[in-house]
Amino acid sequence: MNKKDETARPEARLPKGLFDAGANEIRATERMLGTIRQVFESYGFEPFDTPTIEYSDALGKFLPDQDRPNEGVFSFQDDDEAWLSLRYDLTAPLARYVAANYANLPKPFRRYQSGPVWRNEKPGPGRFRQFTQFDADTVGAASIAADAELCMLAADTLEALGVPRGQYVVKVNNRKVLDGVLGAVGLGGDANALRRLTVLRAIDKLDRLGSEGVRLLLGKGRKDESGDFTKGAGLREDLAELLTVIFRPGQGSPLIPTDSLRQVPLSHAGQAERDRTFISDLDHVESNYLAIDLFGYVTHDLLRKNGLQSNEVLDAGLSELVEISRLVEAGGYARDRICTDPSVVRGLEYYTGPVFEAELTAPITDDRGQPIRLGSVVSGGRYDGLVERFTGEKVPATGISIGVSRLLYGLQLLGQDKSSATSGPVVVLVLDRDRIADYQRMASALRQAGIRAEMYLGESGMKAQMKYADKRGSPCAVIQGGDEKAKGEVQIKDLILGATLTAIKDRDEYLKKQAEAQFPVPEADLVEAVRGVLARHKA
Amino acid sequence: MNKKDETARPEARLPKGLFDAGANEIRATERMLGTIRQVFESYGFEPFDTPTIEYSDALGKFLPDQDRPNEGVFSFQDDDEAWLSLRYDLTAPLARYVAANYANLPKPFRRYQSGPVWRNEKPGPGRFRQFTQFDADTVGAASIAADAELCMLAADTLEALGVPRGQYVVKVNNRKVLDGVLGAVGLGGDANALRRLTVLRAIDKLDRLGSEGVRLLLGKGRKDESGDFTKGAGLREDLAELLTVIFRPGQGSPLIPTDSLRQVPLSHAGQAERDRTFISDLDHVESNYLAIDLFGYVTHDLLRKNGLQSNEVLDAGLSELVEISRLVEAGGYARDRICTDPSVVRGLEYYTGPVFEAELTAPITDDRGQPIRLGSVVSGGRYDGLVERFTGEKVPATGISIGVSRLLYGLQLLGQDKSSATSGPVVVLVLDRDRIADYQRMASALRQAGIRAEMYLGESGMKAQMKYADKRGSPCAVIQGGDEKAKGEVQIKDLILGATLTAIKDRDEYLKKQAEAQFPVPEADLVEAVRGVLARHKA
Repeated sequence: MNKKDETARPEARLPKGLFDAGANEIRATERMLGTIRQVFESYGFEPFDTPTIEYSDALGKFLPDQDRPNEGVFSFQDDDEAWLSLRYDLTAPLARYVAANYANLPKPFRRYQSGPVWRNEKPGPGRFRQFTQFDADTVGAASIAADAELCMLAADTLEALGVPRGQYVVKVNNRKVLDGVLGAVGLGGDANALRRLTVLRAIDKLDRLGSEGVRLLLGKGRKDESGDFTKGAGLREDLAELLTVIFRPGQGSPLIPTDSLRQVPLSHAGQAERDRTFISDLDHVESNYLAIDLFGYVTHDLLRKNGLQSNEVLDAGLSELVEISRLVEAGGYARDRICTDPSVVRGLEYYTGPVFEAELTAPITDDRGQPIRLGSVVSGGRYDGLVERFTGEKVPATGISIGVSRLLYGLQLLGQDKSSATSGPVVVLVLDRDRIADYQRMASALRQAGIRAEMYLGESGMKAQMKYADKRGSPCAVIQGGDEKAKGEVQIKDLILGATLTAIKDRDEYLKKQAEAQFPVPEADLVEAVRGVLARHKA
Repeated sequence: MNKKDETARPEARLPKGLFDAGANEIRATERMLGTIRQVFESYGFEPFDTPTIEYSDALGKFLPDQDRPNEGVFSFQDDDEAWLSLRYDLTAPLARYVAANYANLPKPFRRYQSGPVWRNEKPGPGRFRQFTQFDADTVGAASIAADAELCMLAADTLEALGVPRGQYVVKVNNRKVLDGVLGAVGLGGDANALRRLTVLRAIDKLDRLGSEGVRLLLGKGRKDESGDFTKGAGLREDLAELLTVIFRPGQGSPLIPTDSLRQVPLSHAGQAERDRTFISDLDHVESNYLAIDLFGYVTHDLLRKNGLQSNEVLDAGLSELVEISRLVEAGGYARDRICTDPSVVRGLEYYTGPVFEAELTAPITDDRGQPIRLGSVVSGGRYDGLVERFTGEKVPATGISIGVSRLLYGLQLLGQDKSSATSGPVVVLVLDRDRIADYQRMASALRQAGIRAEMYLGESGMKAQMKYADKRGSPCAVIQGGDEKAKGEVQIKDLILGATLTAIKDRDEYLKKQAEAQFPVPEADLVEAVRGVLARHKA
């Protein structure tokens, strides 16, 4: 650092993708975290925290869309030259903790955790480099009931936060279904692990890029709007086509033309090929079982027609989906709340079984009326291999993660954030600088009576002080100049009532209201008088 | 990354100075943050948050004890090669925000903020690399009343957290007093800024190293126990001696031998030199004014006797201390709560005026009965130059910071943390795996009635399930095997009562209690029966 650098003024700015938060946002977030905590506690999860920094190798690299080895994660060396990273989620640190302490934990170990996570990514609308997650995980339970419980927890949490039934859906799939189909098209085995991941992440983009774009990503590759070329998975064209047909998103399941199902309306009727027509809009199927049966039937059929064989992984995945459906439907969660959807992928590499994501389904628009793709507000899945990374021993685990900032944003846009702005403090004006100790005592007296209050601490005159009180949203100001002091009085000024005066046309009415809006009381009655003014404006 | 690295297992460990937190600690912290928030809100401060990452140059380097340029702060480059840092406190980011938004803020701007901060330091007992701070700042107020208010806020907050009066003290000093004396010994002016900082940080160690150690640090340098040599400030021996005399810690103020003060007992009587004797234990001085007057008198006297001249900075510092004393005493905060102490320094470079720190004064011992030096649990001061760094315009500002983790630790050791462990969930046992949906429904029914409940999600048998319920601190288990199912019943097992059975000697008494501890009820009465058991154990 040279002399010039030392004297040059730094610029007062924030790095991209990072944001300050004001009082209303913080209060809304706190309320939201409190509600989530309550629901998670009611399910028996216990709070647990890990630090924000971990050894880089302990976190591993499981983020989606990271081709370069150091992308995605903020990493740095400490004084001992060890590589440390800011956590990119709350799951990898949990796996580290469980691996180190498994013997002493209750089994299953059920914890919730909330806190910031970081991504060293290109930020965009709704994509931040620091954001808050709220997770619940059950570690040490292989039972599918643990996955089903998390789906119900997600639904209950959204409803507790004020999202009406019908305006959200928890979608469930199973990585084994995806892996099974991928195995059938020749992408099975450890050697294909990386290629399988590329294919999964392409399928994950079906709703964003459409079949055309994803076929390119599955095949030779795709050039995006900006001209950037993404290398494809190199699948044969007919197989790429087959995958986009099987995993076409937005339908609960494909259809089969049995008598019992002919009644189900086909919204994509008229398409040329019969098999494609079958895989059609099935939002009308009311049972998750039926949807899974249909998906399984058609997928097996399509594989056969393409000269491919089904496998055990696919069948295991389907039967776990049936099991989840059985449990959530028994719990009273119908398909309008928790819905099987074979197109759900989730980008994180470490998932091994059921995967979930919850979306707000009501159309959301921004301040300018533009529709917004909010993406999933809750996501998760089973990650049976994450503890094994450390210990070599399989420890089954499953969890969900709420994207707190994104969900709050969504709730606010939906008008479901029930935050009422907290009232500003009562401001005690300073008219005589030599009597600051007296004004300070008035503010203290109000506080001791449980009233939010402050003495004005700036240097300005009365007019600026009143402006300050306005800017702070003060309900009331306390004024004591020399005249009032001589009479042992203080003036109480009701700022909320005062603000309405200018609209009053009638002179008598004006004078009456004016007298209510500002009035003297003996200094001893200060607290009582302020309390009276505050009571006027309670909802 | 080579093949070997990919297959090698990472070690499940945490970097030094970083810690996981369990349920009790988290709940106690949450309660504590809630109480602090309430007191800060009552003073009129508003919540405000900044992100955890800032541009390195925006944060600046103001940490104590950092000789090497990059020490103390975790820094890294993002994809754009820009240098970013994890914030080391909440004050530097506030200055960045205020510099960028000053025109639109209420003046003064009063905000509180809590969150993690990071130090890339050698961790030690009570020194972590990530810890939580809770700050309140008033920006845009030059008035000393703003500083006095923060001292009162610190005292009120500690009492709200359960620290009894007399078991804490908020100490106040003024950097101008320190700077004035340093100017008098020839360390004035911009050219000596760095050396002045070295001297301040040496004085700050007076209570830890004693006069001897600090004289070395002020002079040629000091070798510590580990053999590390710290270069000294290079002061002449008589001046180093003078500074250790003036700023000798633990006394409220030095004494002068006037008639009115001869009564004050001198606990250090018997020392050879008269001037030294005067600077003696003045915990008996009950007025902050008097203490400041005495300190000022003796300091001026000592300077004169050493052929040195006092200056305006020293006198301004003393008069600000008198002003703070006047305000806090008018507010009813006596010297046993807020106390002027000329030995208080605070290590942060950016302070320009009053500095504060609060300590718990009751002797604290650890689990093994060893006394613990907890250090200050609240600290702060005025930093009029921090916004100016960005804009070139002076914006007066002052603030305090609560060390949340350290304070909680102190309160726990003092037995002031009133946390009662939250009860574990009611556990619904799984005796028949085919009937998981039924058990899940029971857990849901309990939750919907506001009772914390979970279905057992592991794979083990009944005995292990009961053990699990114990480990989770469950008050009650719900059991339904084939027999109960056939009768339409469930067994309710009171685990708290059950745990007392083994101590009962009398057979009849045992049988009676046993019947109370486990009993069948019709399945429809499940919620009512569990509620009854929980009611038995309410405090």
